[in-house]
Amino acid sequence: MPTPAFLPVASQGTVKTLIPEELKDIGTTIILGNTYHLYLRPGVDVIERLGGLHKYMGWDGPILTDSGGYQVFSLARLCRITDDGVTFRSHIDGSEHNLTPELVIEFQQKLGTDVMMTLDECPAINDSRAKVREAVDRTCRWAERCLNHHQSSDQLLFGIIQGGVFSELRQESAQAITSLDFPGYAIGGLSLGEAKEQTWSMVDETMPFLPQDKPRYLMGVGSPEDIIQGISRGIDLFDSALPTRVARNGALFTMQGRQNIRKAAYKAQEGPVDADCDCYTCRTFSAAYLHHLFKCEELLAYRLATIHNLRFIVRLMRIIGNAIQQGTLAAFKKDFLSQYQVTDEETRLAQKQKWLKSPRRLKDIS
Amino acid sequence: MPTPAFLPVASQGTVKTLIPEELKDIGTTIILGNTYHLYLRPGVDVIERLGGLHKYMGWDGPILTDSGGYQVFSLARLCRITDDGVTFRSHIDGSEHNLTPELVIEFQQKLGTDVMMTLDECPAINDSRAKVREAVDRTCRWAERCLNHHQSSDQLLFGIIQGGVFSELRQESAQAITSLDFPGYAIGGLSLGEAKEQTWSMVDETMPFLPQDKPRYLMGVGSPEDIIQGISRGIDLFDSALPTRVARNGALFTMQGRQNIRKAAYKAQEGPVDADCDCYTCRTFSAAYLHHLFKCEELLAYRLATIHNLRFIVRLMRIIGNAIQQGTLAAFKKDFLSQYQVTDEETRLAQKQKWLKSPRRLKDIS
Repeated sequence: MPTPAFLPVASQGTVKTLIPEELKDIGTTIILGNTYHLYLRPGVDVIERLGGLHKYMGWDGPILTDSGGYQVFSLARLCRITDDGVTFRSHIDGSEHNLTPELVIEFQQKLGTDVMMTLDECPAINDSRAKVREAVDRTCRWAERCLNHHQSSDQLLFGIIQGGVFSELRQESAQAITSLDFPGYAIGGLSLGEAKEQTWSMVDETMPFLPQDKPRYLMGVGSPEDIIQGISRGIDLFDSALPTRVARNGALFTMQGRQNIRKAAYKAQEGPVDADCDCYTCRTFSAAYLHHLFKCEELLAYRLATIHNLRFIVRLMRIIGNAIQQGTLAAFKKDFLSQYQVTDEETRLAQKQKWLKSPRRLKDIS
Repeated sequence: MPTPAFLPVASQGTVKTLIPEELKDIGTTIILGNTYHLYLRPGVDVIERLGGLHKYMGWDGPILTDSGGYQVFSLARLCRITDDGVTFRSHIDGSEHNLTPELVIEFQQKLGTDVMMTLDECPAINDSRAKVREAVDRTCRWAERCLNHHQSSDQLLFGIIQGGVFSELRQESAQAITSLDFPGYAIGGLSLGEAKEQTWSMVDETMPFLPQDKPRYLMGVGSPEDIIQGISRGIDLFDSALPTRVARNGALFTMQGRQNIRKAAYKAQEGPVDADCDCYTCRTFSAAYLHHLFKCEELLAYRLATIHNLRFIVRLMRIIGNAIQQGTLAAFKKDFLSQYQVTDEETRLAQKQKWLKSPRRLKDIS
């Protein structure tokens, strides 16, 4: 698997609107499933009986699954956290369920994905230091239990570092989790509404503890501007629903920033939205047609925009990969960030959609 | 263009959820655009400037456009009908517009479609005989004006027969319209809520007047059970939003009738919904996966179901074509109709969705 890589989000076993062939065509190398979603619906036993998640969704490339820890703390209604595990109510039907470190390993073994994640406790953005410390400690104990329970030799298990926005807790968590010797490490619990500088400051606190010869994965982060920031800090893997979600809202990535395809200026534009782009959408249709589909709320609009944004990220990754090889990353980063306009509105919305306020619970996060 | 053929509905310049390559793969040979929709949004001038409807939507096969007559009488808010034309308010923004026979020809010339339709007046299902007679007479005068105004040699213009559910008016309309010598004839104003027997009785009254060497097109009809009924009466062309609309509701065609993919029975079904089907969906995914996508309201569900239903119609057309050549159509029709279960609910809903009641005006018809 080439890195750096971006994982399109397929929480429910589908990258919204797309078929596997389109993902391949886009250049996607690895996708992200979600244990919480698939456990609730259709159930991990159903997927196991049907031959595992790859076969179920028709994707033969690598799949990484998140453990569901984040979703339990963000999407579900939380009931109880104990050292044993977490009890929650489904966001779908309110039914009560239980996750333990051992269960999330068993669930992910049933899904048969290539990379599993440990169960973590993800604190809310304004939780107290004491509360976050508790989460850090519990996340570490859970990580150890996940590791002990993991037996499938064909599945990797990555550890997750927490610590909220507290430097010393991030460092402690990184030390504790890396001492357990996972084949890859993720930084979790960021980009949840904190200021961007805080996000990168926490990444900076953590990175020195992560071995350079193992994948380093920044969870839930994946806008173009954040990807370049992350890679310049040594991050190898990213996932985020942002590129596909904003696509469905009509925001298309270009090197100049997101363009709102609904704008009247596109009504008669003969060329594609992004003249530099080689995606199916830009090769095939005018910006005018895409504008029309969005104005009419035609379902095809969401699909064509999703293809474009995912392809933009793949192309960006490749450009960055080349810049790294040629030793020109710093210059590219500077150029890119000076060109790529991010409005305050975009920053604000991205945060809002992640985590409205603590204590927690935002619907429609996936 | 091989007949019999079914025209998937692409009123707004897109067969909902699909790209042109998928339509080709399904075996679609011709599609239906709509002058009313495209005139209102994005405007026929925009499409003309961008090279015509084929280029705009990326479809290089034949396109037939309805004149918009039906939509003015069903979807828009009607203001005035005079001999000159019809004034209506847009269903989108309430703005006032005017259609005349000459204008619909000019609009369709700008769209550059392969087959144009005349402007017709489509009476409601319980309009009086006097009212329907008036519509028949006006439709005929308008047809003549369309014919006189039509100048593009690379576009065919088909005439439309009206007459409501009155036998002698259907006959009169058929005689009058066929006397104008169009290269093809459509039967309009049926399947709008009248009993099925009445639909077929009106078709039976009309068919003897239509030349056998010209395409005969039954507008707005296209369920599997109606297609076999229509073809056995000599109909060559069908269009209907029903196959794609019911697909998006989770109703998938099989030789045994529509199957509701949301049913719990499909939750763990390893095989496809329809074991006989060679469509992309049935070749690639289990019924269980499609069931899951529908339960999760994933956008991919609507696309995969649309592919299946359109492919079912194409395969049905081919089977019927073979039966005609082998002289076994009557036997096939009997077999098919005895196997293919249509529930009363389906019949009722299909009618309701078409034309709730007179006087007119149903939203979301397209």
